[in-house]
Amino acid sequence: MGLVVQKYGGSSVADAEGIKRVAKRIVEAKKNGNQVVVVVSAMGDTTDELIDLAKEVSPVQTGREFDMLLTAGERISMALLAMAIKSLGHEAQSFTGSQAGLITDSAHNKARIIDVTPGRIQTSVDEGNIAIVAGFQGVSQDSKDITTLGRGGSDTTAVALAAALEADVCEIYTDVDGVFTADPRVVKKARKIDWISFEDMLELASNGSKVLLHRCVEYARRYNIPIHVRSSFSGLQGTWVSSEPPGGHDGRGEGAPGAQAALKSGQGKDSGQGEQSMEQAMISGVAHDTSEAKITVVGVPDKPGVAAVIFRAIADAEVNIDMVVQNVSAASTGLTDISFTLPKSEGRKAIAALEKAQGAIGFDSLRYDDQIAKISLVGAGMKTNPGVTATFFEALSQAEVNIELISTSEIRISVVTREDDVNESVRAVHSAFGLDSESDEAVVYGGTGR
Amino acid sequence: MGLVVQKYGGSSVADAEGIKRVAKRIVEAKKNGNQVVVVVSAMGDTTDELIDLAKEVSPVQTGREFDMLLTAGERISMALLAMAIKSLGHEAQSFTGSQAGLITDSAHNKARIIDVTPGRIQTSVDEGNIAIVAGFQGVSQDSKDITTLGRGGSDTTAVALAAALEADVCEIYTDVDGVFTADPRVVKKARKIDWISFEDMLELASNGSKVLLHRCVEYARRYNIPIHVRSSFSGLQGTWVSSEPPGGHDGRGEGAPGAQAALKSGQGKDSGQGEQSMEQAMISGVAHDTSEAKITVVGVPDKPGVAAVIFRAIADAEVNIDMVVQNVSAASTGLTDISFTLPKSEGRKAIAALEKAQGAIGFDSLRYDDQIAKISLVGAGMKTNPGVTATFFEALSQAEVNIELISTSEIRISVVTREDDVNESVRAVHSAFGLDSESDEAVVYGGTGR
Repeated sequence: MGLVVQKYGGSSVADAEGIKRVAKRIVEAKKNGNQVVVVVSAMGDTTDELIDLAKEVSPVQTGREFDMLLTAGERISMALLAMAIKSLGHEAQSFTGSQAGLITDSAHNKARIIDVTPGRIQTSVDEGNIAIVAGFQGVSQDSKDITTLGRGGSDTTAVALAAALEADVCEIYTDVDGVFTADPRVVKKARKIDWISFEDMLELASNGSKVLLHRCVEYARRYNIPIHVRSSFSGLQGTWVSSEPPGGHDGRGEGAPGAQAALKSGQGKDSGQGEQSMEQAMISGVAHDTSEAKITVVGVPDKPGVAAVIFRAIADAEVNIDMVVQNVSAASTGLTDISFTLPKSEGRKAIAALEKAQGAIGFDSLRYDDQIAKISLVGAGMKTNPGVTATFFEALSQAEVNIELISTSEIRISVVTREDDVNESVRAVHSAFGLDSESDEAVVYGGTGR
Repeated sequence: MGLVVQKYGGSSVADAEGIKRVAKRIVEAKKNGNQVVVVVSAMGDTTDELIDLAKEVSPVQTGREFDMLLTAGERISMALLAMAIKSLGHEAQSFTGSQAGLITDSAHNKARIIDVTPGRIQTSVDEGNIAIVAGFQGVSQDSKDITTLGRGGSDTTAVALAAALEADVCEIYTDVDGVFTADPRVVKKARKIDWISFEDMLELASNGSKVLLHRCVEYARRYNIPIHVRSSFSGLQGTWVSSEPPGGHDGRGEGAPGAQAALKSGQGKDSGQGEQSMEQAMISGVAHDTSEAKITVVGVPDKPGVAAVIFRAIADAEVNIDMVVQNVSAASTGLTDISFTLPKSEGRKAIAALEKAQGAIGFDSLRYDDQIAKISLVGAGMKTNPGVTATFFEALSQAEVNIELISTSEIRISVVTREDDVNESVRAVHSAFGLDSESDEAVVYGGTGR
């Protein structure tokens, strides 16, 4: 018997029908002989409705009271889910984040988990219950106040509970069939990835893939918890995210037992697993991101310490930056340009911070451009394959896409292009690396049960 | 400086406007120099909406999970209220029943309070905050599960907190101006009662008055907490429920200091307080109740032990009964009739229990009648005034109302009549005891601010 943590997002429990469908799926996992812990988000639009109410009574949507308000959403969904399971003849108990032992710091609205003490959850499942836990919320260690974990909080709750309970697998149910080699809305021939390493998944998540958030994957990697991303609407196998492929050859495979157990759960099984995994070890996929803007600081003196002044000013304004590129200095002037990318939403703040620091930096002017896209190729295979970079640039060249910035890591190449070129770029790169599916029917996106 | 516990019902916080209006009232109390603890119910229809959702996912609306679900309602209203107060420039913190120390037994959906440990609330108000507490909910002592207190739970939360915090007064805000000498929908000249004793209020609550529930008044009497029932829509003084009238002559007046402090709070003051209190010491008011039915067990052997068999059968079926009357036995037959009243909702259960026990009881037949009304006159004055009973019956006689059953206590006379006669009966009795208001304008019902 294994212990499975399942997480269902708001779209999976959007209404009473959704809750009943999810309840049946949970009961199946229990019937297959597992102990089952379920993490659930608020129903569909509940959180937005609560935010709207908050806006009506107060200009401020932050802090302790806002957290108290938002956590009502999960309280409703988890209680309803427990009731739906009980009406199927199985025992279920729901628990708040506090009751489940999700201990956080006191940073309301974006709390970090600092400890997980799931004694009540363990007892509940040991007594034969299905335990339902509110996602997204915890209780602060110091003041015992209700906190929320911020964006992607429910996924993180699930992985953190899986780690603390030493679960065999953390299943993240969503409204897509898994992680794809590219966004299927852009690339019709995108392929569902059967397995991807934590490292590659982190790069995809950092560079525009929205299925899993970086934070959740990072937590899973630290505790070596295999994640299975799959659809709550279809019954298909999804994408495994783990340290080693299920059934790998190295004999280590800490993630593998759980993975294999779940593969045997009779919920459908893909063929060609081994072959595809070999291929994916090379290149995992292509991510794109149109949420960033580019700032160029023009005419900066090319001398030591200037870049430090620029990025201290940016950091003091609490702006997160992504790529940074410094042009080669023009010998005649001793001046250079420094460009960096950042979330569009922080553009105004960054410009203001730089203008304030113009005296200290000594630049000529600022250029702001939010019509850009970032295209990233991710895969551990490129570490040892020098041809990858060349193929990447050739693909963009043949698609007549101009490259504005380049940034690389050991397992990723990213370029910045015009936003208009993003779809063409993603398709060209996806095709150039042989990621295109051979038949269209392999691609399922957006769920089949809705 | 005093400590005031205020309770606002769902109709007072039905929408964002209501929450903002209530927030202003709370801030007023704080500005008047009080420490303020607020107990709040779920917004308007929230609880009904949650029940509807529960019905969609499960045939059972009871137990631990149902409590978890329902308590989401207060979580929303209390957080919004705290946010609204903060946006007025005052500090507020909201607390769940569990955080506020409302410790209950484990009887889900109808838990009883067994201890109140309001350390966090005391600390919060000592630090200058307005503390907002979720009504209707607590946490079970044994299992640390979330519980709800059942009907009238928020009023009971408020009184229990007031007792534990040694508050000067517990203000119950509602959508009427206070407790009236009769239901103003029936008696246009009904008068708002300025002060009523705990005992008289208990009798009114037991006999059809719906403003305060018996349970809450009983709790307040036990801990001698003065209750001030008033409208959250008008700014008027409402009805004081306490052991002694505010400003009474006996020099004891434990309830009086708080009462007087609140009377000085500048939220309006009625004249003639002393004079009316003298009058009300005689008769408090007329209550009526059309929610009961009458069962007559016909042709019962008039011998010892038969009544015991009847009411054991009823008790075993967990049916609560109210009035019981046994007719004088007809000497010729040795048979008698026994009648009793009970909630209409339990009629079916009681009849079934009696039919099952027909052999043991040996009655001829059963008569069930749910077209009845109970009219009750309440007042400590009748203890020492033998004319009260006579006046009461004369009033009904002049109104040509037939009396079917009679029941009396030291401070109450109740009769059962035809349901069709209820309004006429209440008006006749109200008038006969000089309770009619002299001018119509004194009567305010249903709030003025809606």
